[in-house]
Amino acid sequence: MRPVSIVGVGQVPVQKQYSETLRKLGAHVVKLAMADAGVDQVDALFAGNMLSDELQSQKHIAALVADEAGLEGIEALQVRAATATGAAALRMAFFAVSSGEADLAIAMGVEKMSEGIATPALAKALDSRQEVPTGATLISKNAELMRLYQQKYSVPADGLAHFSVNAHANALTNPNALFHKEITAVNVLNSRIISDPIRLFDCSPICDGAAAVVLAPTEHAQRYTDTPVKILASSVATDRFRIADRPEPLVLHAARRSMEKATQRAGISQKDVSFFEVHDAFSIMACLLLEATGFAKPGAGWQMARDGEIGRNGRLPLSTFGGLKARGHPIGATAIYQACEIVQQLTGRAGANQIENAEVGLLQSVGGAAVTVLTHIFGVS
Amino acid sequence: MRPVSIVGVGQVPVQKQYSETLRKLGAHVVKLAMADAGVDQVDALFAGNMLSDELQSQKHIAALVADEAGLEGIEALQVRAATATGAAALRMAFFAVSSGEADLAIAMGVEKMSEGIATPALAKALDSRQEVPTGATLISKNAELMRLYQQKYSVPADGLAHFSVNAHANALTNPNALFHKEITAVNVLNSRIISDPIRLFDCSPICDGAAAVVLAPTEHAQRYTDTPVKILASSVATDRFRIADRPEPLVLHAARRSMEKATQRAGISQKDVSFFEVHDAFSIMACLLLEATGFAKPGAGWQMARDGEIGRNGRLPLSTFGGLKARGHPIGATAIYQACEIVQQLTGRAGANQIENAEVGLLQSVGGAAVTVLTHIFGVS
Repeated sequence: MRPVSIVGVGQVPVQKQYSETLRKLGAHVVKLAMADAGVDQVDALFAGNMLSDELQSQKHIAALVADEAGLEGIEALQVRAATATGAAALRMAFFAVSSGEADLAIAMGVEKMSEGIATPALAKALDSRQEVPTGATLISKNAELMRLYQQKYSVPADGLAHFSVNAHANALTNPNALFHKEITAVNVLNSRIISDPIRLFDCSPICDGAAAVVLAPTEHAQRYTDTPVKILASSVATDRFRIADRPEPLVLHAARRSMEKATQRAGISQKDVSFFEVHDAFSIMACLLLEATGFAKPGAGWQMARDGEIGRNGRLPLSTFGGLKARGHPIGATAIYQACEIVQQLTGRAGANQIENAEVGLLQSVGGAAVTVLTHIFGVS
Repeated sequence: MRPVSIVGVGQVPVQKQYSETLRKLGAHVVKLAMADAGVDQVDALFAGNMLSDELQSQKHIAALVADEAGLEGIEALQVRAATATGAAALRMAFFAVSSGEADLAIAMGVEKMSEGIATPALAKALDSRQEVPTGATLISKNAELMRLYQQKYSVPADGLAHFSVNAHANALTNPNALFHKEITAVNVLNSRIISDPIRLFDCSPICDGAAAVVLAPTEHAQRYTDTPVKILASSVATDRFRIADRPEPLVLHAARRSMEKATQRAGISQKDVSFFEVHDAFSIMACLLLEATGFAKPGAGWQMARDGEIGRNGRLPLSTFGGLKARGHPIGATAIYQACEIVQQLTGRAGANQIENAEVGLLQSVGGAAVTVLTHIFGVS
């Protein structure tokens, strides 16, 4: 396999509602990323989108976006892994370039959650026969994990609140973030209950967004940019589909396995990671991912947040541009936003959000109730 | 990139309605294919499914099928390209093995069209803003092409009927086919109009089915089977999304481009093709694909069918196990069925359906109104 690098990025600000159509929003970021790479043609486009079947009554998204972007003729396929869909598109573009089937491939994601009611469509990531009929949603499943966690480890009421506080602090200076509002742990605790014990400020928002990256073989990356970012590893692992079937529901086996595979392929250990763009769709998920990836011991992930270790100057900066919580979580686009942000950090283009000594960026993406987890590791080497 | 071969196949008979759930049907063919390859573990599973969002209220199919098959932990992703979805899963598994990311990968497809009403969900392969609101469906779009074709080339009323006659003749001896009933051109012409000029017997049926193949690096293929089949090429191309935007709607540019790319990579010409598993979702599509791939001149594709050239002893056997028309077209599974059938032909395991001198098998898969076309070429070498 040949090494692969990112040579162009494109993103639009996450918003509550875009008036542009899904296809136009998607085509727009494709063009932004291509302009950033200085190319006017690519071989392939891999599109991430989770909800257009329901919200836009539209399938066949990849070809539609390619057509809208004026890329008639190219390869275009859609890929999905529930709420980790954007990362699946990234992996597929990685495959295409790595295998030699494409010399330039776009991974893009677009989601317009503002058109219609997203929650029931999102719940289809759960088991439609054994979970959804009981009223379960992705929120209630995360609430189940949070309750178990708080009880098992006697976590104080505000223990997990600091993940959201950090995310909002980082989003303040990100022009692409949905929220530009500082919050405190008290704000989190005073926000309304969505699914006990999850409160509004523990949740990432329903929103619209799109982002794209251009991938090229590392050996040719300098043709397109002076600052390519190498994909050191890409991996996927799954867990039992239902939380109820997992002997240790608080141990995210898919995240652990995926991280192990990725660090092994990258030839690094978790200590080499400079910062972590984590899947903080809910505070509890950020916490459990810190533990599954080995940054914190079981039951101690929340302490990293409380003790300021996840801040931009902390031991392991988390969600450095606001994360899913405050930049926003337009599902199919989310991991692509994170990839763009990692490129910004690793190339010194993160502006006010820049962290020091950014050498290795970690990205994890969670599909469903921690069923499918993709890990991507990026570096400047 | 490293060469890739198919080392195991699994399929269940296409039926009007399976009582088994989608996940169980999917898991069943995965196990059949793994048993055929003699393996009890794989690295990755790529699932093709187009309609489960609507018909089973279920997303996240790949992880669900992997879990049901007892493959906890492996990579599992879903891939889509509208009605060419099965072929997209095959391409992704090809990517995974070719890139070195997986040593054993499954491409599988499953579709249960019997649960609910498939037609509106299928129509989402068209443009939901500019085509569907006018009442357009995939059938009406194919009817548009058929009308244009018949007029332009003064095709006799029964000109296209022989594609269906051939498909039904070949399905007679395929135990996995939905239909086991010989038909004549007169039967086709006497069947009821579905969308003028398309008649019932011009259309592939709504049905349930599932199929799977196991892919391995060619260099290790002999570990798993004495009769591996090599994937000589895999390619994708797209066309303008709407037929209305195409200057020559009867020339399927995506099929032509995809065929050109594939023959070039395989290092063959279309003359080397022994047989063609064509996307005969509608008679007109089979005809136009023969022309786009260069087997017939524009306007002459239907004559190949009328003159018996597409029969099992003809110049270019087509749909040798009954095709989409008579084996059935359970969307996400269709191309995987075709891949299984090509393996059967190339390894001398086609039984009563065996054609002589089967050396190179061609597979084309069409997404939407000929928007996305995938070409796969297989050989014994």
